[in-house]
Amino acid sequence: ASQMDLDNQGRQKFIEFPFVSAPHRDLMVNLLSTVEDRLGSHLLPCTLPLDVQHCQNESGSAQASLHIRSGHQSSQVDFILGSWLHCKLPTGGALNITSLSAYLNPSTDAPNFIIELIQSSPTSLILILDLPPRKDLVLSPDYLQIFYEDTQLDMRRQMLAKLPEVQPYISSSLYLRSVLSPTVIMIQIEAEAGGPERMEEIIKNHIDITAKEVLGIWLDHCACGERLVGKEEKGYLKKRDEVIKKKTIEIDLGTNFPRLFGPEVTGRVLGAIQNAYNV
Amino acid sequence: ASQMDLDNQGRQKFIEFPFVSAPHRDLMVNLLSTVEDRLGSHLLPCTLPLDVQHCQNESGSAQASLHIRSGHQSSQVDFILGSWLHCKLPTGGALNITSLSAYLNPSTDAPNFIIELIQSSPTSLILILDLPPRKDLVLSPDYLQIFYEDTQLDMRRQMLAKLPEVQPYISSSLYLRSVLSPTVIMIQIEAEAGGPERMEEIIKNHIDITAKEVLGIWLDHCACGERLVGKEEKGYLKKRDEVIKKKTIEIDLGTNFPRLFGPEVTGRVLGAIQNAYNV
Repeated sequence: ASQMDLDNQGRQKFIEFPFVSAPHRDLMVNLLSTVEDRLGSHLLPCTLPLDVQHCQNESGSAQASLHIRSGHQSSQVDFILGSWLHCKLPTGGALNITSLSAYLNPSTDAPNFIIELIQSSPTSLILILDLPPRKDLVLSPDYLQIFYEDTQLDMRRQMLAKLPEVQPYISSSLYLRSVLSPTVIMIQIEAEAGGPERMEEIIKNHIDITAKEVLGIWLDHCACGERLVGKEEKGYLKKRDEVIKKKTIEIDLGTNFPRLFGPEVTGRVLGAIQNAYNV
Repeated sequence: ASQMDLDNQGRQKFIEFPFVSAPHRDLMVNLLSTVEDRLGSHLLPCTLPLDVQHCQNESGSAQASLHIRSGHQSSQVDFILGSWLHCKLPTGGALNITSLSAYLNPSTDAPNFIIELIQSSPTSLILILDLPPRKDLVLSPDYLQIFYEDTQLDMRRQMLAKLPEVQPYISSSLYLRSVLSPTVIMIQIEAEAGGPERMEEIIKNHIDITAKEVLGIWLDHCACGERLVGKEEKGYLKKRDEVIKKKTIEIDLGTNFPRLFGPEVTGRVLGAIQNAYNV
């Protein structure tokens, strides 16, 4: 198969998001399309082998899809990564995780983009939506001002926090907590009273809008903004980005993935991601 | 007055904590005594002028007390700072803030200590309790492991979060959020149903124990631990510590203090703090 075929086949499978609700799927497809429309010329096709773009375990109880497009060498984009994971739970339900992240390379110090939806039942959802900083914010009050205060990111967090179904969510990974920005939207939504319809309504009328706004800020101010980065700072960014990428792989593929898919599939996916991440 | 007299007079006034409940006062006095007992030989007497150690506005509706002891030159301690603030509110109630922080100097990279209690009514309390890191945790997973994972700090946060009166608290200052660690205890306690007695019980039976444990970890692992810090890293720590100290002064004395005490008192206190902070 040619590289374009590989990309098209995998992408089609990826954007099916076959196990989540329509508003959840619409949200993810819309975010990916927005990124691809805006950054298309910066992105290479997805060259992951098909058995990495989509994999499942022997019993078929767990499936995952992975879509990575690296940036052109001349681009500020390092890569974009979309994924979904589905696995049946012993309780009879299913866990569904969908994510889209976009990493910039050391030609800019602007923040990355990340969204992750973790749905453990039709009425229970964890949302992580953020522009993770590329520098130590404590040492860089100007950077904090430009990307987090002037963009009014915290207002979006506050709006979602007002919904009665929303509680703050705190990840068990201290490293993940450290990587995220002070305006991260990290919430748990429990819509048991309103049922699955209420959850779909929250995704459609609240999360969808907020995610588009945050992605819009990222595209305008980060991916397509221009920043002056000196040689020394490039070295610093390269090192910091690498540590984040390595630790993120550890967190994402460290425990659950091997348990669900076994060592062979895990090794294959791990190798492909390390290759795309260049770590 | 000799320096020792200055220290004794100011300290006595400071540890009165005249406007907070007995368990709240006991907690603060106990923490200060523990630090002074353990680090006493490292600390110089408080040399703030008496009109900085204690100040009030013309009408007497606002009072503040400040106690700063710098570390000996040979010590790892930069300074410890205790404070309380009392001001009557237009609603008839009063706002009471008490705090104790301890900063280390660049001879070590170990975290600092901070506790702050913000009581806006007898049944409403915000608690900030943390060991703020001295380095970018994203770049230093080992540091995160040693000071935050191995010390099980997050367990203490989780314990307090279980109380029905406790909600997460999110500061409006993005800079403050950036300075704090991923295991920060930053909570709002609302005990309206149980009344002031319930709040005193929560302070005595829960906050007191947790604060002592966190301070114990700081004394054992940070203030009295030994860390190898190279020359280049000392320079980095010096710069980062300075930015934090300057921004912290801005946040603490930037808006409320001038409004409450007027420009003259604010100028005097600001100068004394900048002097003690060496910024």
